[in-house]
Amino acid sequence: MGDKIIRINMSNLTTAVEAVPAEWAGLGGRGLTSTVVAKEVPPMCDALGKYNKLVFSPGLLTATAAANSGRLSAGFKSPLTGGIKESNAGGTAAQKLERLGIKAVIIEGMPEKDTWYAIHIDNNGATIKEDVQYIGKGNYEVMKAVGEKMGEKLGVLAIGPAGEFKMAAANISVKDPDGNIRSHGRGGAGAVMGSKKIKYITVDETGGPGVSIADPEKFKTQARIFAKAMLDHPVTGQGLPTYGTDVLINILNEAGGLPTKNFRFGTVEHPEKICGETVHDTIASRPNGVTAHGCHAGCIIKCSQIYTDKDGKYITSGFEYETIWGFGCACNIADLDDIAKNDWVMDDVGIDSIEGAVLMSVAMEAGIIPWGDGKATYRLFDEDIRKGTPLGRILGNGAGSVGKTYGLTRIPVVKNQGIPAYDPRSVKGIGITYATSTMGADHTAGYTIATNILKVGGFVDPLSKEGQVELSRNLSIATAAVDSTGFCIFVAFPALDIPECFTAIYEMINARYGLSLTADDVVALGKSILKTERAFNMAAGMTNLSDRLPEFFEEPIPPHNAVWDFSGEEIDEFWNF
Amino acid sequence: MGDKIIRINMSNLTTAVEAVPAEWAGLGGRGLTSTVVAKEVPPMCDALGKYNKLVFSPGLLTATAAANSGRLSAGFKSPLTGGIKESNAGGTAAQKLERLGIKAVIIEGMPEKDTWYAIHIDNNGATIKEDVQYIGKGNYEVMKAVGEKMGEKLGVLAIGPAGEFKMAAANISVKDPDGNIRSHGRGGAGAVMGSKKIKYITVDETGGPGVSIADPEKFKTQARIFAKAMLDHPVTGQGLPTYGTDVLINILNEAGGLPTKNFRFGTVEHPEKICGETVHDTIASRPNGVTAHGCHAGCIIKCSQIYTDKDGKYITSGFEYETIWGFGCACNIADLDDIAKNDWVMDDVGIDSIEGAVLMSVAMEAGIIPWGDGKATYRLFDEDIRKGTPLGRILGNGAGSVGKTYGLTRIPVVKNQGIPAYDPRSVKGIGITYATSTMGADHTAGYTIATNILKVGGFVDPLSKEGQVELSRNLSIATAAVDSTGFCIFVAFPALDIPECFTAIYEMINARYGLSLTADDVVALGKSILKTERAFNMAAGMTNLSDRLPEFFEEPIPPHNAVWDFSGEEIDEFWNF
Repeated sequence: MGDKIIRINMSNLTTAVEAVPAEWAGLGGRGLTSTVVAKEVPPMCDALGKYNKLVFSPGLLTATAAANSGRLSAGFKSPLTGGIKESNAGGTAAQKLERLGIKAVIIEGMPEKDTWYAIHIDNNGATIKEDVQYIGKGNYEVMKAVGEKMGEKLGVLAIGPAGEFKMAAANISVKDPDGNIRSHGRGGAGAVMGSKKIKYITVDETGGPGVSIADPEKFKTQARIFAKAMLDHPVTGQGLPTYGTDVLINILNEAGGLPTKNFRFGTVEHPEKICGETVHDTIASRPNGVTAHGCHAGCIIKCSQIYTDKDGKYITSGFEYETIWGFGCACNIADLDDIAKNDWVMDDVGIDSIEGAVLMSVAMEAGIIPWGDGKATYRLFDEDIRKGTPLGRILGNGAGSVGKTYGLTRIPVVKNQGIPAYDPRSVKGIGITYATSTMGADHTAGYTIATNILKVGGFVDPLSKEGQVELSRNLSIATAAVDSTGFCIFVAFPALDIPECFTAIYEMINARYGLSLTADDVVALGKSILKTERAFNMAAGMTNLSDRLPEFFEEPIPPHNAVWDFSGEEIDEFWNF
Repeated sequence: MGDKIIRINMSNLTTAVEAVPAEWAGLGGRGLTSTVVAKEVPPMCDALGKYNKLVFSPGLLTATAAANSGRLSAGFKSPLTGGIKESNAGGTAAQKLERLGIKAVIIEGMPEKDTWYAIHIDNNGATIKEDVQYIGKGNYEVMKAVGEKMGEKLGVLAIGPAGEFKMAAANISVKDPDGNIRSHGRGGAGAVMGSKKIKYITVDETGGPGVSIADPEKFKTQARIFAKAMLDHPVTGQGLPTYGTDVLINILNEAGGLPTKNFRFGTVEHPEKICGETVHDTIASRPNGVTAHGCHAGCIIKCSQIYTDKDGKYITSGFEYETIWGFGCACNIADLDDIAKNDWVMDDVGIDSIEGAVLMSVAMEAGIIPWGDGKATYRLFDEDIRKGTPLGRILGNGAGSVGKTYGLTRIPVVKNQGIPAYDPRSVKGIGITYATSTMGADHTAGYTIATNILKVGGFVDPLSKEGQVELSRNLSIATAAVDSTGFCIFVAFPALDIPECFTAIYEMINARYGLSLTADDVVALGKSILKTERAFNMAAGMTNLSDRLPEFFEEPIPPHNAVWDFSGEEIDEFWNF
């Protein structure tokens, strides 16, 4: 882990290299970003104002030989939820920051001058320069142009027009190993970067100190155990590499937990047109398609892919289940190419692809566009959001914005963040996670689908209330710890089923830093992170009543006719730790 | 006070006449509407959903010979603030309901069928009929057409297109004695009525039992004392009758507390073009202009007026200081006729004229229209809000909606309700009221301008922090009680300065009902109402942190360069009673 903090002050346009305070020494990723935000950001501040900060941190194992450890955490007060936010992404920036010895980048303040800036980070620290040449440009063009101008090997973080407009659904794009795009998706990271008038950040690792391992032999042994477990587990070794995350369409459809037409139905009429198997076969049948692709160097799952059209022309990559669900089921779009094009345009304008999908289903609910019309959704992204028309502003601020602006009551959000791809009535554990997550509705915060549906780490009946709070709590605690390592969340699958995989996670940290953490320390870290985040949210004006699902989930959802039947008291038990 | 409750269920389209529960017997106006909402509306419900209710109640003295007692309270959970709301208005409906012996009308549920209804209330109770003929029509047209069709003597409540679109700034219009319009303005009453698919409500008092007085002699004596005090006091006897509420422009401008260009300055450059004196002279110089006009029968202040154009054609009536401030100062518009036309169009489309003014200043802040352009604001009301375009939807949901949708930080709202016409930095008492009011930013909730600026009820230096919390608290308690009587809030001026006027208020209640209330009972009622409302808000997810002003009030405002310098703890002292 790096030994320096890069602090970038956008009010007076200065940068500094600081030593790492002792209290932050053992932290990385989400653990560090949430700690910095909780310490330095006034909880009641305006998320788009000068008191908010944008913090980037690689994980504790980033840039080591540990498989799947290359994710970057971004932390800030969210303009979408009004609470704390950590959003992590693959791409190449995390490993470059780590090799520069940088533990965190803290961006604070706000320029008075009405212009735009670029940040460059290298072994000498950070520099700020005024740069307006890419303003209004999409992320694909920016990534390409910056690469051509400054070198293809630089890490790049950028915002699209949505971030420039400070839209609450705006993401931060990260350049991936092929020059394509991964995203700090949820919670409006791009709007915060836009509020600080930063269009892009480049990272040059040249000359950096690299990563040193305290006990290389031990590290190598544990990394091997870990990698083997990943390859042995059926989800990370077979399902995800073969079909990508979209393998879940058929599984959730069979379970009746695939929210369709804005959470009216638990199954979709056209699963065969959008399922993982079809995505795989479509990609495989087309020129230049890549069925398995990693979002960062060192990934051995490779659940990403490159999706091309019939002529082999690139359409999109990182084409995830959540996106395909959102357009294919929530919006009821049956054309996979249309969905892929929506994925591209969201990446290009810089919109979170989950929020983007959910907000379009709410736009259909409002009658703005017809159900199932994937060309209409594309047009709204490309013409309205990209240009910042009034309609584009409504949409770009997320599902809650669309629903409230049009006076709807069927608005699938928690803490104003769009609800993802699993119905909380028919998969009740994930409903507890949606309700209680400090992040707003977020499946990754405590992915009970593992146990409710995939029978990983045991089985808890998704339709029964029993055991769901405990399941969600345990997974949320574990996730907060995993989000601090730089690992992608999918390492949880083998870690839940294969004891030596779980052990390997903290033993690799021990070997990296010369520590002697135990499993209890991992749990304690996770609990501490959740409590820090929740304390921030409470100080920002939230209460236990913020941990509730929308009223309309009292309506039964076919095929099980399940309803959301947890009382407030039952939900609040989540925090009893 | 009436002895029956009219309950209207829009889910199953039934109505009922109910006896008044004993616990509600001594309540009227805001005291009753807030009690009913607190008892019957689940605080966490969707404000536009089937669990919200819309409650109307005349005041304890409505339809008696007490001067200025004809106001009607509307209570509901606000789609604008997310908290409880009471909004009262003049017009003719309150007195008609009272004469029918109706203590409250409670409208609940929501129709499943996608159509519109009209409600008719008479001595037999209420009836519901499907009626879509006025959908899309403005309030002026509806008032006229309903009058022609059903009789000019009926009381009418209606919503404009803004209410049909369930916009959070939508008001409910009430027909005034001349067939013009008064409004339940703040907090989105019109959106709630729209969510229940009611376009208009008619009240026919024919055959009603009328109002009986327990001790007519005592009542007459006290009513005379009260009326004399109103006429004797310089504010209610001279200032308001002569110049209307707009008398305040010059006063606040001189005090440096007149928020200009979205709260950037405390004075305006063109006071002489928009002040009360100019309004008076303009009206007086034009054919058909009426300089003093009451909003309901029995008003002896007559601060309203009828404003005509040079040819004597009606432009607007009820042309208030808040509206003239909002367009003339917050939006910096210097043309009084333009401002009057904006007042008309807001009444016609059904938008609260305070929220309407504040949201336009935020639209100027966002660059949607230029500063000072009153024709542009008119166009936005008439074309965008009236037609429900995307921009119209953004605007129609209020100042907070505009600011958030455009990613601004300079958004003058508390609890998402637009801040009215007195700067909280240079008139600090009103800042405490804005912060603490259960209603969101609301000057009427505890009108410290009386004591801070007009030196009514003593004097508390507006620029000093000292004494402001106590002042705001005392006035807020008194106001909650006054809002239960049916009196217009201006009775507070003589009541604060003339002891027998204050006594007359509760002695008239005693004479009306055969009670023996004391001054302590009045204070106890006010406290009880505030605590009921606050408990509702807390149960709806608010906290003490909801009682805070926006961050930008840390910026000094000329000419005093005052800043908002109350700590959270100091503000929270308000609730120490």
